[in-house]
Amino acid sequence: MHRIHGSAIWVIWGLTTALAAQAQDTPPISGDSETCVACHELVNPGIVADWRHSRHSRRSVAQALAEPELARRVSAEKVPDELANVVVACLECHGQNPEAHADTFEHFGYEIHTIVTPQDCATCHPKEESQYGQSKKAAARANLLENPVYRGLVDATTRLQTFADGTLTPGESTDSAKAETCLACHGTKVEVSGSRTVETELGEIELPTFSGWPNQGVGRENPDGSLGSCSPCHTRHSFDIAVARSPETCSECHLEPDVPAWEVYRESKHGNLFMAHRDKQTMDTVPWRPGADFTAPTCATCHNSLLVNSEGTVLAERSHDFGARLWVRIFGLPYSHPQPATGLTTGLRNKAGLPLPVDLDGTPAATGLITAEEQTARQAAMGKVCSSCHTGSWVAGHFANLDKTVGNADAMVKAATGLMQHGWETGQANPADMFDEPLEQLWVDSWLFQATSLRYSAAMCGPDYGAFKQGWWKLQTNLAKMKEMVGK
Amino acid sequence: MHRIHGSAIWVIWGLTTALAAQAQDTPPISGDSETCVACHELVNPGIVADWRHSRHSRRSVAQALAEPELARRVSAEKVPDELANVVVACLECHGQNPEAHADTFEHFGYEIHTIVTPQDCATCHPKEESQYGQSKKAAARANLLENPVYRGLVDATTRLQTFADGTLTPGESTDSAKAETCLACHGTKVEVSGSRTVETELGEIELPTFSGWPNQGVGRENPDGSLGSCSPCHTRHSFDIAVARSPETCSECHLEPDVPAWEVYRESKHGNLFMAHRDKQTMDTVPWRPGADFTAPTCATCHNSLLVNSEGTVLAERSHDFGARLWVRIFGLPYSHPQPATGLTTGLRNKAGLPLPVDLDGTPAATGLITAEEQTARQAAMGKVCSSCHTGSWVAGHFANLDKTVGNADAMVKAATGLMQHGWETGQANPADMFDEPLEQLWVDSWLFQATSLRYSAAMCGPDYGAFKQGWWKLQTNLAKMKEMVGK
Amino acid sequence: MHRIHGSAIWVIWGLTTALAAQAQDTPPISGDSETCVACHELVNPGIVADWRHSRHSRRSVAQALAEPELARRVSAEKVPDELANVVVACLECHGQNPEAHADTFEHFGYEIHTIVTPQDCATCHPKEESQYGQSKKAAARANLLENPVYRGLVDATTRLQTFADGTLTPGESTDSAKAETCLACHGTKVEVSGSRTVETELGEIELPTFSGWPNQGVGRENPDGSLGSCSPCHTRHSFDIAVARSPETCSECHLEPDVPAWEVYRESKHGNLFMAHRDKQTMDTVPWRPGADFTAPTCATCHNSLLVNSEGTVLAERSHDFGARLWVRIFGLPYSHPQPATGLTTGLRNKAGLPLPVDLDGTPAATGLITAEEQTARQAAMGKVCSSCHTGSWVAGHFANLDKTVGNADAMVKAATGLMQHGWETGQANPADMFDEPLEQLWVDSWLFQATSLRYSAAMCGPDYGAFKQGWWKLQTNLAKMKEMVGK
Repeated sequence: MHRIHGSAIWVIWGLTTALAAQAQDTPPISGDSETCVACHELVNPGIVADWRHSRHSRRSVAQALAEPELARRVSAEKVPDELANVVVACLECHGQNPEAHADTFEHFGYEIHTIVTPQDCATCHPKEESQYGQSKKAAARANLLENPVYRGLVDATTRLQTFADGTLTPGESTDSAKAETCLACHGTKVEVSGSRTVETELGEIELPTFSGWPNQGVGRENPDGSLGSCSPCHTRHSFDIAVARSPETCSECHLEPDVPAWEVYRESKHGNLFMAHRDKQTMDTVPWRPGADFTAPTCATCHNSLLVNSEGTVLAERSHDFGARLWVRIFGLPYSHPQPATGLTTGLRNKAGLPLPVDLDGTPAATGLITAEEQTARQAAMGKVCSSCHTGSWVAGHFANLDKTVGNADAMVKAATGLMQHGWETGQANPADMFDEPLEQLWVDSWLFQATSLRYSAAMCGPDYGAFKQGWWKLQTNLAKMKEMVGK
Repeated sequence: MHRIHGSAIWVIWGLTTALAAQAQDTPPISGDSETCVACHELVNPGIVADWRHSRHSRRSVAQALAEPELARRVSAEKVPDELANVVVACLECHGQNPEAHADTFEHFGYEIHTIVTPQDCATCHPKEESQYGQSKKAAARANLLENPVYRGLVDATTRLQTFADGTLTPGESTDSAKAETCLACHGTKVEVSGSRTVETELGEIELPTFSGWPNQGVGRENPDGSLGSCSPCHTRHSFDIAVARSPETCSECHLEPDVPAWEVYRESKHGNLFMAHRDKQTMDTVPWRPGADFTAPTCATCHNSLLVNSEGTVLAERSHDFGARLWVRIFGLPYSHPQPATGLTTGLRNKAGLPLPVDLDGTPAATGLITAEEQTARQAAMGKVCSSCHTGSWVAGHFANLDKTVGNADAMVKAATGLMQHGWETGQANPADMFDEPLEQLWVDSWLFQATSLRYSAAMCGPDYGAFKQGWWKLQTNLAKMKEMVGK
Repeated sequence: MHRIHGSAIWVIWGLTTALAAQAQDTPPISGDSETCVACHELVNPGIVADWRHSRHSRRSVAQALAEPELARRVSAEKVPDELANVVVACLECHGQNPEAHADTFEHFGYEIHTIVTPQDCATCHPKEESQYGQSKKAAARANLLENPVYRGLVDATTRLQTFADGTLTPGESTDSAKAETCLACHGTKVEVSGSRTVETELGEIELPTFSGWPNQGVGRENPDGSLGSCSPCHTRHSFDIAVARSPETCSECHLEPDVPAWEVYRESKHGNLFMAHRDKQTMDTVPWRPGADFTAPTCATCHNSLLVNSEGTVLAERSHDFGARLWVRIFGLPYSHPQPATGLTTGLRNKAGLPLPVDLDGTPAATGLITAEEQTARQAAMGKVCSSCHTGSWVAGHFANLDKTVGNADAMVKAATGLMQHGWETGQANPADMFDEPLEQLWVDSWLFQATSLRYSAAMCGPDYGAFKQGWWKLQTNLAKMKEMVGK
């Protein structure tokens, strides 16, 4: 039944869906999953409704495999027979790989697990899982916690402090403090912590409890030993590619002041066009065609989607290694540097022997970073995306400007670093903990927030952002304060 | 006439409305209101057009009363006969309760008032007015201005200062400074200040002038003696429930840095989904059905809307006391504490005898706050909303994380408070005015902005916000600066 | 072909466009432009697709000239015959005025230029170009760089600094630093810098290279000697008036902390309504009718669009001098002051002889600013826009509140200025460079960011913004810090 008093769009969506369903028979739901739905539709109506809106609820893997290659959304060559001809419903995912899952439990006769992992998704999407698994995203937890420098910053940021008897005493950072901040994006370790008994209309049931949960961090350690999570972008349970391609999705983690991708995008011409023409962008087609499907790019357009022109020529390959079209890393470290050659960065060493890709004077690590040739190839790949809507002179000018701004940002960090080192040498600050004194915190602010912001403002064409909001002005006021502190 | 060169949506909206009108006869407009419309359509076309888009312009109260109970949008048992069978137009509201309104004036033969108040709306919506009247919202003006501590913060924030003869001298906060900041949300006192003569095509007319106007603060003191305003959320003159349920509505007041609900929502998965799927959410149905009507929650979903599942079982009751599902208060005070038991909080007293729900060491007031049992009941009510889309283990984990983060925030405030009190004891700051020296202002920043932000980031699932943007990092840098100031 | 698996809106847009096309024959594309399209459709599919969505691709100038006066989008009396009866495609713009363009080059037999300028657009839109040419926008580059005070602020913000041998040394601001910040909005000087050879499927071609490019600053100096750019608002290549009227367009430059129009709008009731009802606003009709076409105003509504009521009476004239309805200037200078009388402001002189419209004590310049009569006329013009949706008492109250808040902001700046001057007198800071020491930078923060924010919060009805986010609280904390610095 289509309501006429509600949103007209909803009606149209319904009609469109109905037409689509007519055009191709909807495969059946497996009997097991039908049981799940019957009960959970009342207990968690939003979950089931969201799934009903999903492509998973309307297509079988066999149908997906029959699509022309560029339009395929599954990368498996084939899948187990019992999965092939039903829609992808509850047990098809929550019942995958039960033996691998430490969180498998018995639920009304089924062996299921709460936490669906990239390894589960890989049954149908192995290529995506493989690319993702080699990216910095999958290693996001290890890259943070197993690197002593970053670990120090995490602890300095989230440690509790107490004041008693006239003295301020730094304490420990708790697991919950880290879980609700850094690890919310980088990923917790999720483990079964016990079980609980719940009263239901069908009697008492036993359910597992977890530590490190809920979490959708991109580098999550899962109870099946796998790394990462698909749901921060492919939000459950509609798994709508239109959501994954929406800029707000990326904005949950890529935000000011340390990674201001969202803020710079929103105030760029790209963001402007997307917001103004949002209702005219077709967000869910595969492949995705600049011009024909959309005129305003989102994060996914430039960083990972498969793009083709009107003749079907591939302009950009799909990749779930989101750094695949990036040649220089512009955040997270004091200085820009060539992208790490591997997703796991704990093995990098700078001149000083610290596990970082750059030294305090800006020199990049001698090994472990991509080569100049690889940088050129990746810039060319990104340039092909830009060329969908920009001329060659525009693209060349943009890349040249970006280079210069990145250089300026690095130079300003170098001045701030010099002042801080001078403060260390003269005893005005203590390098034992690099992040806990006002002089050091101004230095952190200068590189982690301001220089990064300046680089992003140039990279993603939101120049206003790098002038006063973050960037230049604050780099200057930080230097003036630091100079006053160290008497220089 | 439906334009084809304009927005297609507008056409569809028109068609939908036309179909709806066909389905049930539109009642007549009262003759008196028809007179208003004839003239104001030319003078204020936006007002009349907005009303024409409203439900008020298409339905009579009698029709509204005939709806099934869960779908009813009026809570009166019955209304005066002259109101029952006409649409709700100009005089039906601006002519309500003329004797109660100090702002009633004669206008072309009608006794009308400019400012329509909750007491006027209560003719048809008495239950909503009653719930609202007992909430903190209706008391927002008194809670701020009649509490000496808050009043001190208001004055310290908005007072003028002058520099002359080498001395900076603090002056008074003016009425306009308060009206254009704190009281814009908390509410001014609106009074008739005189009258003015206006030339019109129909000759000279006399109109009242007001002090404290314009204002739509939630605790406004109205010329009829009532408190509050319905229009900040039910924006005149469409009074569209879809607007009241839109997150931007709440965001006019619930904003960073002191109440960062909007910012945390926008960067949460909830906000992400809402923005990505906004055009597929049905925002105006009563009751509101998770899954069927919407999959992305807004502020109203969790805090006050009537929610039912597909079987019509009530998941959450409607309430216009917006704290009805809240068990802990996480903003506006240095420390979290159980929600106040009444909307008017001027009667609260902490250990030290100050009109606050907590002491400077974090101890909650002994009386005037809700009990632990009531806290449990309210958390359970909120948990039922969460369960629409989340499993029990998710919800339990979320509440546990929230508790820990709120505890962390309180602990960090306690350290900052210790440093400030130490500064008072050692004469480095003067407690006579708690808000006017750099040391004290860092303390205010720590609790009013940073600790609040940290708590919100956990409560509303926008964890990135509490790490660097606001919250932890700034709590640490504030402590480092305060430590330096007091030499500890 | 209309896809049914894509966005339903896209389908409707297609249908609407098809109906519109049926209603009036689409004129032909010129043969020359057809050649351009054939190739660039593959090379830059986004550009061509965007243009296909434009009005330019569907209408000839002759058709545009035949519209009723209020609906006309071209202001030329007539255009050259060869332009009149074809759609406005590639060469119609990129081939305009080839002799005037230093960037003209030969491209497959055509004389074309990359950079289309206001002078090119003036062929069909002369009135808009003329208004714009006299506005502050067209003079934005000169107003910044040819004014020694502003130039000093630009340089102090973007100069590189180095630390060596224990000393921090300020260096120069580079062209690229300015181009990627201030001049991104104010405009670079675009010049041909050389040429490059590109391999294409049709052989090697020679293309010009540019300095100062890419840039869409509003005061850009173009290779044809003209000033400005139409594309920051009328974004190429759809040139959609709906984009120009969208608030995100203006937000690319009018942003916090120095011009927080976007932030204040977004959190105002105007912004709230626009976001909540965005899909019901008709954004592309000319003239634009409050109520009939839209109920939520955007920047363009209040500042420059042609508005008429339902009887066709003009409520507000179109102007491309965006200050035409503004009587007081509330940003960019320490103190508010009457709007400059001309767009080019380098000729202004204050009491002290500096090229500024105000003195350091707040006195406005004696000449070069609009008169009180002109101020009254402009306020009345803006008031007519407000009256579309607000009563006279609302509008009068709003303007009175704005006046008071602007006065408060000026008074707070005066106190900060007094403290800084005291610091200069006592040798605690050095006035030789006004922008490079912490005391001075707090002063800059107070007027350039905080006082401006406070004024905007009142002007555009986002009062929360001026309380804590920016404005009052930071004005107070700045004063407290400055007082401590100068020992007063």
